[in-house]
Amino acid sequence: MAVLSEALTQILIPVAAFIGIGFALLQWLLVSKVKVSADYGKKDGYKDKLIEDEEEGPEDVDAFIKCSEIQNAISVGATSFLFTQYKYLGVFMGAFAVIIFLFLGSVKGFSTQSEPCTYNPGSLCKPALANAMFSTIAFLLGALTSVLSGFLGMKIATYANARTTLEARKGVGKAFITAFRSGAVMGFLLAANGLLVLYVSINLFKLYYGDDWEGLYESITGYGLGGSSMALFGRVGGGIYTKAADVGADLVGKVEKNIPEDDPRNPAVIADNVGDNVGDIAGMGSDLFGSYAESSCAALFVASISSFGITHDYSAMSYPLIISAMGIVICLITTLFATDLAEIRHVSEIEPSLKRQLLISTILMTAGIAVVTFFALPSEFTLFNFGTEKAVKNWHLFFCVSIGLWAGLVIGYTTEYYTSNAYSPVQDVADSCRTGAATNVIFGLALGYKSVIIPIFAIAIAIYISFSLAAMYGIAVAALGMLSTIATGLAIDAYGPISDNAGGIAEMAGMSHKIRERTDALDAAGNTTAAIGKGFAIGSAALVSLALFGAFVSRAGIKTVDVLTPKVFIGLIVGAMLPYWFSAMTMKSVGSAALKMVEEVRRQFNTIPGLMEGRAKPDYANCVKISTDASLREMIPPGALVMLTPLVAGTLFGVETLAGVLAGSLVSGVQVAISASNTGGAWDNAKKYIEAGASEHAKSLGPKGSDPHKAAVIGDTIGDPLKDTSGPSLNILIKLMAVESLVFAPFFAAHGGLLFKLL
Amino acid sequence: MAVLSEALTQILIPVAAFIGIGFALLQWLLVSKVKVSADYGKKDGYKDKLIEDEEEGPEDVDAFIKCSEIQNAISVGATSFLFTQYKYLGVFMGAFAVIIFLFLGSVKGFSTQSEPCTYNPGSLCKPALANAMFSTIAFLLGALTSVLSGFLGMKIATYANARTTLEARKGVGKAFITAFRSGAVMGFLLAANGLLVLYVSINLFKLYYGDDWEGLYESITGYGLGGSSMALFGRVGGGIYTKAADVGADLVGKVEKNIPEDDPRNPAVIADNVGDNVGDIAGMGSDLFGSYAESSCAALFVASISSFGITHDYSAMSYPLIISAMGIVICLITTLFATDLAEIRHVSEIEPSLKRQLLISTILMTAGIAVVTFFALPSEFTLFNFGTEKAVKNWHLFFCVSIGLWAGLVIGYTTEYYTSNAYSPVQDVADSCRTGAATNVIFGLALGYKSVIIPIFAIAIAIYISFSLAAMYGIAVAALGMLSTIATGLAIDAYGPISDNAGGIAEMAGMSHKIRERTDALDAAGNTTAAIGKGFAIGSAALVSLALFGAFVSRAGIKTVDVLTPKVFIGLIVGAMLPYWFSAMTMKSVGSAALKMVEEVRRQFNTIPGLMEGRAKPDYANCVKISTDASLREMIPPGALVMLTPLVAGTLFGVETLAGVLAGSLVSGVQVAISASNTGGAWDNAKKYIEAGASEHAKSLGPKGSDPHKAAVIGDTIGDPLKDTSGPSLNILIKLMAVESLVFAPFFAAHGGLLFKLL
Repeated sequence: MAVLSEALTQILIPVAAFIGIGFALLQWLLVSKVKVSADYGKKDGYKDKLIEDEEEGPEDVDAFIKCSEIQNAISVGATSFLFTQYKYLGVFMGAFAVIIFLFLGSVKGFSTQSEPCTYNPGSLCKPALANAMFSTIAFLLGALTSVLSGFLGMKIATYANARTTLEARKGVGKAFITAFRSGAVMGFLLAANGLLVLYVSINLFKLYYGDDWEGLYESITGYGLGGSSMALFGRVGGGIYTKAADVGADLVGKVEKNIPEDDPRNPAVIADNVGDNVGDIAGMGSDLFGSYAESSCAALFVASISSFGITHDYSAMSYPLIISAMGIVICLITTLFATDLAEIRHVSEIEPSLKRQLLISTILMTAGIAVVTFFALPSEFTLFNFGTEKAVKNWHLFFCVSIGLWAGLVIGYTTEYYTSNAYSPVQDVADSCRTGAATNVIFGLALGYKSVIIPIFAIAIAIYISFSLAAMYGIAVAALGMLSTIATGLAIDAYGPISDNAGGIAEMAGMSHKIRERTDALDAAGNTTAAIGKGFAIGSAALVSLALFGAFVSRAGIKTVDVLTPKVFIGLIVGAMLPYWFSAMTMKSVGSAALKMVEEVRRQFNTIPGLMEGRAKPDYANCVKISTDASLREMIPPGALVMLTPLVAGTLFGVETLAGVLAGSLVSGVQVAISASNTGGAWDNAKKYIEAGASEHAKSLGPKGSDPHKAAVIGDTIGDPLKDTSGPSLNILIKLMAVESLVFAPFFAAHGGLLFKLL
Repeated sequence: MAVLSEALTQILIPVAAFIGIGFALLQWLLVSKVKVSADYGKKDGYKDKLIEDEEEGPEDVDAFIKCSEIQNAISVGATSFLFTQYKYLGVFMGAFAVIIFLFLGSVKGFSTQSEPCTYNPGSLCKPALANAMFSTIAFLLGALTSVLSGFLGMKIATYANARTTLEARKGVGKAFITAFRSGAVMGFLLAANGLLVLYVSINLFKLYYGDDWEGLYESITGYGLGGSSMALFGRVGGGIYTKAADVGADLVGKVEKNIPEDDPRNPAVIADNVGDNVGDIAGMGSDLFGSYAESSCAALFVASISSFGITHDYSAMSYPLIISAMGIVICLITTLFATDLAEIRHVSEIEPSLKRQLLISTILMTAGIAVVTFFALPSEFTLFNFGTEKAVKNWHLFFCVSIGLWAGLVIGYTTEYYTSNAYSPVQDVADSCRTGAATNVIFGLALGYKSVIIPIFAIAIAIYISFSLAAMYGIAVAALGMLSTIATGLAIDAYGPISDNAGGIAEMAGMSHKIRERTDALDAAGNTTAAIGKGFAIGSAALVSLALFGAFVSRAGIKTVDVLTPKVFIGLIVGAMLPYWFSAMTMKSVGSAALKMVEEVRRQFNTIPGLMEGRAKPDYANCVKISTDASLREMIPPGALVMLTPLVAGTLFGVETLAGVLAGSLVSGVQVAISASNTGGAWDNAKKYIEAGASEHAKSLGPKGSDPHKAAVIGDTIGDPLKDTSGPSLNILIKLMAVESLVFAPFFAAHGGLLFKLL
């Protein structure tokens, strides 16, 4: 039995969650001290305060009011889009909940009879109908938590962006702290919230299930499915929204009209900023929450059929949750290093400070894992390994979780190397702009392909070690290890779009060049951290999917997935094709929506007199509407592809082919996702490198408007859908298909493979 | 026993080969009737002949002489490059032959003792040392045949290009026939040559091996390895050569100097034309010869351990060769439909005529397969299926071969749909050029991704049916089925670069606009057929690799390749990464070499007075040298990656991990290869669509030099390395790693997995 008692476990987990929530609220309080209000300038005493705090003097009052207005427009746009999206998703959730209930209920013909347990044949387990019902409830809970995570993230980000802009007047350090604290609010709220809902659900389900832990943790897998399916639509819909606006705005504004990015004369500029919040923030929040939920569910499911699962050792069973609880505490300490223990005084310190966050959290968490492993797990136990029993020691698990954690760091640092303009890869891409857009694209694609190598080796080593030591449980906890510092990861990830928006607001509010330079520096670091965040999301998705795949195979009762059988091999090759099909859909969607946006922006420039001269206001709302409509319409086909593939493959071709599909889409999708997001990040930063002109080399390529810069802008535009739509959606594709297969496994095992049965 | 007697088989195979060679010589004779000679204009009676035959009148004499000069320059350049390349490859071949001998000899410690056979334990088989020696000889024979195939193809193409130009003066039909006949020369020579060398080798090896067919056909696999390793360097080296020159020429010529493609003032223009011949012709010839050799070897190896292999039924054993022999005869009939039974009168008839070739050969060959299957195979036999015996009927094999053949047709037609500018996908890409290069690239990438779907389903269905009916033998003969019409496939494939060169020569020789229009139309159809050829090459490579993979697994003595073991899974994910690593290398190589070419071309324009005005000649030789040096230097790292991966994976990690690597690279590489070559083909034809201006829509995007056209040129340039370097090299990557693993299987099985043994 574990050293940690059940009672203590029951206390520690919620306490850690509440600490995380409390810390997030504290950070929010600190951010909220920066006042943004359109009325504010009219109040008495306002000027005194302004002069006291700020460098730029009283000509700022206008800018101040503008900031507030713009922030308001962005927030209203984002909120209204998300509500519209949620309305559609509500319908989908309801319909899919019915499907889950009917499919799983039909496994034993909706019988209410208890049955002997599969892995513990001595005792009686709850009927399949209960599994159907609780899986459905868990699905809905997961979906709601995911929606909540995305929505909260968006609210925080739109709350923070204008505040970051205003703080940028006081210096880059202040602006950095504001953006980073806001990111931390999102990170801690999400991590704590995810843990708490899962903890509460398990305890509530236990009231019904009692000692039937097999059934309990099987139905909990619905939580992962709910989280991930919302994340899919969030990522795809948000990704199409943001990139349609961004590409459309850039193509007319930067390329045709030669006006700067985020210029308020550009009609698509508000849609672009709204997009950052609904795509990069809300979508990414849902995505990482989904990964977290799925890896927890996969670990819990595999643990429920281990020796400590069968003997009902609650603390050992809760090992995945305790790791996450420890992660929240570790991340809290890590955050203090960025916000309180050191101060950013110069632009060049931003990226190292963010990188240090990753390193500190990883080192501290390694110790944290050792503590948790020692106290929460029995010193020896056995795990279920596709039909055989595998004896495992608790320190094996320490290595599994740690290797996942450190693989995450390696992936993060590699991503940084390939996407930051401080290193030669991006500088080479920038240099290739001398000979035009074509060489820029060729070099950028090559960079993306190359950036896959190290992450794949890191993932392969993590898989080999954790798989060898503790079978599928090892993989699942390795994924959890990578995600254990999710609060920090999300903080530095959310920091990116917040800074991006802050820069946009500075430009739109007509702030001085100096301030725009500061926000640009914040944003360049943000591009890199966004790429790092995507790297984490993809790396963890690979591990999570494999763990879910293993859990699916166990639940479906397959002993081997042999490539040398035709059923598996065709699944493998078709599965490897799915990321391409999916990317084709999303890229084309962005392209078509961007074309519509371009037409609208051109129309406004041509028909609104005085717009180009800044005497008339553009019709922002029309562009917001185009992005909204496009994203809601276009998210359906790729979403349907992902949601229907496991159902079709499992029902028509059976579990072996489905297993092949999952393995194929996993090993192929990871590569496409990493290369797409790094290529896009590199192009964006190559452009920023030329614009900033911080070195002799960079100056020789610039300034803005030079031929190399124009070539760099083309690359940046191509990269937009790669890095913000298709790339990051792919990790949801691989995870979601796996978790869906896991949830529906009993149905496929009972009724699947219709086509082969007919032949 | 088979209906066909051994004696008749021994006669029929070489007779078919000689018929093929004879037909090729006949076509050559017909092409050679078009006279090209610099002296020719000086002879008496020349003018009479000219006036009699040609439309363009006597002002042509100059053009005539110029054509001859240019043809000569291209031919000399191509020959000299290939000889330099072969010098390097000679060293490599020698070194690798030693490695093969040492590795395979060491399996039983260089013992000269005979041993009991593996699959026929009653009888004695030749020692492992004999296997080492004959494998090495087979390797060298395969390498030499591959080199010969590429070289002959190049010679024919450079012989034909100026003749096609000259014939274009008489009309599009005459030019088409010349280009197509020349392609047929190459197609038939290669198919017949490959069959003949293999047939002779088997009969010579039999003198030593006698009744030890296991050993005989094991060592014959070296033939496939030799063929494919030369093809790798041919494709990669040739691909880098041609695209460095092409991209370099376009970037300065078309984009900066605004001079047309193939303008003689452009210093890189000869290098570009040489490149077409060494890359698209010699490289592609070696590639398809490699596929043919490998699929034959895989089929023969698997057959040698079947029931008819063990009972020594020579006709049944020769089934793979007889299919190829039948293919030559069928293709001969098919060719007559294009050259003699119908005539091209209008530009719009070119593509349908080429497409019809595919359809006719497929329909006729289906009947041919039925005949061969009935006569050459016993009505019932058993095949070895990873440790079990599988009973098979001869008509099962008919379906296996036919499904491969028809899958090839589906792939070919799908490729045509996605890359021909007669259909909406390419027209949409062209339309997206309105909003600039960025949308063009986004739409083009999306098109490439989408074009993967149908071919993958076609391959999956072919695999499922042939695998289910006849295990790995089914897959191998399905690959042979797809390649059975290789003579026709190569003819329409080689037709493309010949037409491309003919257009280049017309431009350089200063021929009239009308002639250039005709060669452009030939070339546009050629882009599509080149893409179709690549589709075939990739589709067949997928089947061949799977067959080789199966043969490797059998030879290495593995019973299952279970994804649910860590050793296999890490192989799978790392294998899926290799195509990206490889593409990164080749794309970067093309990019860097193109940058050097750009500098040289710019330098010449800046320093040679009167070059731009056409008063001075550029220094073509310097550009040829840059391409040559770059290609020879840059082909080594990607070549090493492919050649070393199986050796390293097998030696350090063992056969299970290697099996994973092969499966992973296969399922991932196919997708990357198809999407890369179709994206590139689509961009090229989108540009041609705008240039040709054949419809209202196309006219609205043009003319040459308009903004949409400039955007289309950028897309075309990006597509160059995708479609002609990295894409087509990838199918060699997957085949070569598989055949290398097969040849080295006994070594890996005996001494492999060192790292895991140490741990």
